[in-house]
Amino acid sequence: MPNITVDLPQNSYAIAIAPDSLKDLGDQMKQLNIGNKVLVISNPEIFGHYGKTCLESLSAAGFETCTHLIPAGEEYKNLQSIQQVYDTAFANRLERSSTFVALGGGVIGDMTGFCAATWLRGVNFVQVPTSLLAIVDASVGGKTGVNHPQGKNLIGAFYQPKLVAIDPTLLKTLPPREFRAGIAEVIKYGVIWDEDLFTKLEHCDRLDSLEHISDELLEIMITRSCQAKAEVVGKDEKEAGLRAILNYGHTIGHAVESLTHYKQFVHGEAVAIGMVAAGKISVEMGLWTKEEAQRQDALIAKAGLPTEIPSELAIDDILETIKSDKKVKAGKVRFILPLAIGKVTITARATSEIISKALSL
Amino acid sequence: MPNITVDLPQNSYAIAIAPDSLKDLGDQMKQLNIGNKVLVISNPEIFGHYGKTCLESLSAAGFETCTHLIPAGEEYKNLQSIQQVYDTAFANRLERSSTFVALGGGVIGDMTGFCAATWLRGVNFVQVPTSLLAIVDASVGGKTGVNHPQGKNLIGAFYQPKLVAIDPTLLKTLPPREFRAGIAEVIKYGVIWDEDLFTKLEHCDRLDSLEHISDELLEIMITRSCQAKAEVVGKDEKEAGLRAILNYGHTIGHAVESLTHYKQFVHGEAVAIGMVAAGKISVEMGLWTKEEAQRQDALIAKAGLPTEIPSELAIDDILETIKSDKKVKAGKVRFILPLAIGKVTITARATSEIISKALSL
Repeated sequence: MPNITVDLPQNSYAIAIAPDSLKDLGDQMKQLNIGNKVLVISNPEIFGHYGKTCLESLSAAGFETCTHLIPAGEEYKNLQSIQQVYDTAFANRLERSSTFVALGGGVIGDMTGFCAATWLRGVNFVQVPTSLLAIVDASVGGKTGVNHPQGKNLIGAFYQPKLVAIDPTLLKTLPPREFRAGIAEVIKYGVIWDEDLFTKLEHCDRLDSLEHISDELLEIMITRSCQAKAEVVGKDEKEAGLRAILNYGHTIGHAVESLTHYKQFVHGEAVAIGMVAAGKISVEMGLWTKEEAQRQDALIAKAGLPTEIPSELAIDDILETIKSDKKVKAGKVRFILPLAIGKVTITARATSEIISKALSL
Repeated sequence: MPNITVDLPQNSYAIAIAPDSLKDLGDQMKQLNIGNKVLVISNPEIFGHYGKTCLESLSAAGFETCTHLIPAGEEYKNLQSIQQVYDTAFANRLERSSTFVALGGGVIGDMTGFCAATWLRGVNFVQVPTSLLAIVDASVGGKTGVNHPQGKNLIGAFYQPKLVAIDPTLLKTLPPREFRAGIAEVIKYGVIWDEDLFTKLEHCDRLDSLEHISDELLEIMITRSCQAKAEVVGKDEKEAGLRAILNYGHTIGHAVESLTHYKQFVHGEAVAIGMVAAGKISVEMGLWTKEEAQRQDALIAKAGLPTEIPSELAIDDILETIKSDKKVKAGKVRFILPLAIGKVTITARATSEIISKALSL
């Protein structure tokens, strides 16, 4: 599998994709011109699977390692967990030239990145994503952060990794539900950027678990998704404009996650619901054809992902919640809406009335 | 007084210096192409003096304002205070295009900058420094942060303001002790960068309070210090090399602050002690003449600043504390040491033995 470069004005970096490459992590990091100390941050389950291979690879390459584990789950994605990482970093005398390695999914990656951005005003950061969602989305692009009691990822920083080291074989231990959540983001890239990827996913008989997906299609899903993300981030690192399209499905998705207290859905499932909702709004506004929206919804359903906002959530509560979204500008909620498979627009013209009507359908 | 530009690869900005300019802050900020909402962060005493002028100026220019006050003092410079600012930012629906204004000294500036760097992954930031130390040092250059229970400024980010708006008339309400603390940093620029500034300070009869300093000398002190800082930061924004010279006097200074639990000395006083100590080390290593070191020490004493490490502090404790300094690289403590008035070097060759000997003199 190929290397992809995220090309930025400052701090460009590689996404290295290769099966069975975790054992080479130390050698890969040796190329980065970084200091000798490495703090590996993970959660207990993932560390149980891959911690030994990771630490041995780092030690063999001459790095001095230490470890910090954070319990799995969105409910630990907060400043209290960050403070404990700082304590570990202090106890182990981590230096500015040291490196924080995120060995885990999106939550571990986001938190490790935030710690790396803010410990000693910035140390090196390497992403080793272990979930499909983190591989195709969270690990690339430098968005880091934790949740505020009132909202997801409200606290954070843009901070780019020095390397994203992807080993697709790590997906073998990923629970099927988490795998499907990652497929939601792959479908997203199809809708917003890559019609051909979308069509290839349509041609696959089953998308709901890894065992039904060929190595070839998995490679296409990973490389094309990372390529899409690298292209968008390379054009707009700090989300001044274009990058917002990566939030397709996320505005309503975040609201659904928040209103269900991050308990009913994993992130990718909420995004799946959000994409279906955004599709409805786009159709309601006359921007997208009903036929293409149905193709999207069918693909999401084929991946075993939810498509409906839970009936117990009131539309007014969703409207209220999205108004506190990070992407709000001058009080206006901006939506990413499809114009065609592979093409979206960013608009602030989706009024509460339109959203209400579309979501009631 | 002139404008100075901090010239950076990205995010260059102006240091605007003008007496009685606080009332024009709204107009100055209007030029920045920022959103409508402004959160002013200050402490109760400073806000009592200048809050009204600040808020009225912002309102007159059409900004919608809100305020967050943090009790004065280094002991509130922590993540708990930051979390409360986040709560205010959330409650007031601050957006990515909104602006956090720091109206205060170094502590308020550092904390406001850190909040601006990390709320919604970065909002706009404006510095309105009200202490001499913040004017000549802390407000320029983008170093933001808070203290970790184990050390000063261990948590932070590099995050540049969009504007530093300096109104020297605000210094009238500054307590004399705080004024002298600022003079310590002005003397620092003389030693590390600007021999002519150093000489001008030597020619002044008294340096220990604002009333003995002419408007002309005050202007020179502010502009030359800001100029020096802007030049150094422009060459090395992220402290890869040169910028470390700005930490002259800070390595031992931070240790003294930390070991006296931030209670005995204000920052500038600790830096004064640190500069005298660094001078001794430089002389001990044969890098600097005893005569010039004495000129430095005399100037520091003339400003009414302390020059001696408190006798109750053990040198071994100081050595242990500086090893956990942010500036430690591969376990080696790097010192900034004068070679001549206006010229310093960065060296890791000051051994514990040399430091012990120099500090015992």
